[in-house]
Amino acid sequence: MPEGLRIGFIGLGIMGQPMAGHLLRAGYPLSVYSRTKTKATPLLDEGATWRDTPADVARDVDLLITIVTDTLDVEEVLFGLNGAAASLRSGSCVVDMTTIRPDATRVLAQKLAEQGVTLLDAPVTGGDVGAREATLTIMAGGDADAFERVRPVLEKLGRRVVHVGPSGSGQTLKACNQILCAVNMIGVCEALTVAQRAELDLTQAIETLASGAGGSWALANLGPKIANRDLAPAFMIKLIQKDLRISQDTADQLGIPLPGTALAQQLFRAVEAQAGGAELGTQAMIRAIQNLAGECAK
Amino acid sequence: MPEGLRIGFIGLGIMGQPMAGHLLRAGYPLSVYSRTKTKATPLLDEGATWRDTPADVARDVDLLITIVTDTLDVEEVLFGLNGAAASLRSGSCVVDMTTIRPDATRVLAQKLAEQGVTLLDAPVTGGDVGAREATLTIMAGGDADAFERVRPVLEKLGRRVVHVGPSGSGQTLKACNQILCAVNMIGVCEALTVAQRAELDLTQAIETLASGAGGSWALANLGPKIANRDLAPAFMIKLIQKDLRISQDTADQLGIPLPGTALAQQLFRAVEAQAGGAELGTQAMIRAIQNLAGECAK
Repeated sequence: MPEGLRIGFIGLGIMGQPMAGHLLRAGYPLSVYSRTKTKATPLLDEGATWRDTPADVARDVDLLITIVTDTLDVEEVLFGLNGAAASLRSGSCVVDMTTIRPDATRVLAQKLAEQGVTLLDAPVTGGDVGAREATLTIMAGGDADAFERVRPVLEKLGRRVVHVGPSGSGQTLKACNQILCAVNMIGVCEALTVAQRAELDLTQAIETLASGAGGSWALANLGPKIANRDLAPAFMIKLIQKDLRISQDTADQLGIPLPGTALAQQLFRAVEAQAGGAELGTQAMIRAIQNLAGECAK
Repeated sequence: MPEGLRIGFIGLGIMGQPMAGHLLRAGYPLSVYSRTKTKATPLLDEGATWRDTPADVARDVDLLITIVTDTLDVEEVLFGLNGAAASLRSGSCVVDMTTIRPDATRVLAQKLAEQGVTLLDAPVTGGDVGAREATLTIMAGGDADAFERVRPVLEKLGRRVVHVGPSGSGQTLKACNQILCAVNMIGVCEALTVAQRAELDLTQAIETLASGAGGSWALANLGPKIANRDLAPAFMIKLIQKDLRISQDTADQLGIPLPGTALAQQLFRAVEAQAGGAELGTQAMIRAIQNLAGECAK
């Protein structure tokens, strides 16, 4: 697609807002819609155009990017009342960057294909920091030619932009990614609970362990937050729980038991059972392990 | 300690042999003992001196390094028949780099202290590759002054050499490290089983996931072996199982349930139940997940 292509952007949350900003600053004409209009204000100040509905955003764009919350939200934005599908022109492309069910994205892709529109599933990993710094990993499924045409746009948003297979493949790989994030967090919380109660210096312990065979992104990035008792969300527990349900449903369809992922879900649920727990960051799983160990978190 | 200090080295297995080699090439006079004398041959060719018993190695050395298999082996080497303790001179230092129980190393340190000998517990992480390339992470517990005196020697063996606290602290941190290695492996095996059955390109999936928030040493280093069906040991399942028993015993003494570690132990046990399984590398946990998913490994 040419540099001058017109982009529509739906979903201006913690991820979408900085991502839309990168596209705007890269010079793409951008029209935007979000459930909460105030979230668009900084983008409108930078030259984006507000549209009142998904259908209005979709009109006259070459590429529509959606990054909302869950499967139902993507279905609503595309095929609900004033949905984008009604006004997407044949030959245009939709890139859905929301984390949703692989089977659902395949159904949506088929429905859009009937009107000559290509849907790519392109969920991301790297969190809010990755969105702000344009260092996301973007894993895309769907038509390879369409992917190559939108790749220059996606490369404004992420450092690693990969086509991983046919429709649904991006979502399947994202489901795998969430398994890793969740299970790695169990290890971090168990190891740091032992280290803490054994009165090791937690900061030094994390630095030392992160350099060895036990190292992980979770340990290096969320371990220090645990050491500093900072449970504020980079990624909320209620959102990883949503994603893990997708991982389990996907594995269920494939006939694969996931006992580690199941354990992570239960430990996250124990944190959700506490007031405000669902809105804490995933590192708050430490509370579940500490509670098991007899230290009731307030 | 001066450069000319005399070092004794006990245990020339997959880790000890290359480590002793580094010390020899760094110019330290080195006497060695191992249960299997043939393992010493390459070192003797390079100038090391063979001794027939631990007691003989310990005579006249300033520093004795031990890296054997398990708690009982360290106890035997130090205090068994012809054990090193009988001939260690007052003022000398023992650095035990075996992974053993934190409580056991504290007892050994106390016994050696009675004869004026300092014991540091200094287990390592980084595997056989780390031993060969001298890139190990070494986590030491015990007297801080003694640690500073032997630090130059340890820095010939590892890239990150850290004093983490009083006697036993090195072993406690190693117990935490093994929790991370084991639990991270669950995530890797669950994620890759989903990716494989969903017919994603496994090599590309690993590269993509390793760059994101699900990344870990286990995924980056052992994931490709799983993709290549290479289950040969860098670190054998029977050895991590030994280490995880130490992790669980340590956590038990601290009153901390470790459900994720327990799950890893059970999955490793499922692999051990297969002929030859105990001698495979830790990445062979993939067999347990695949068997759960109905793909019986031969």
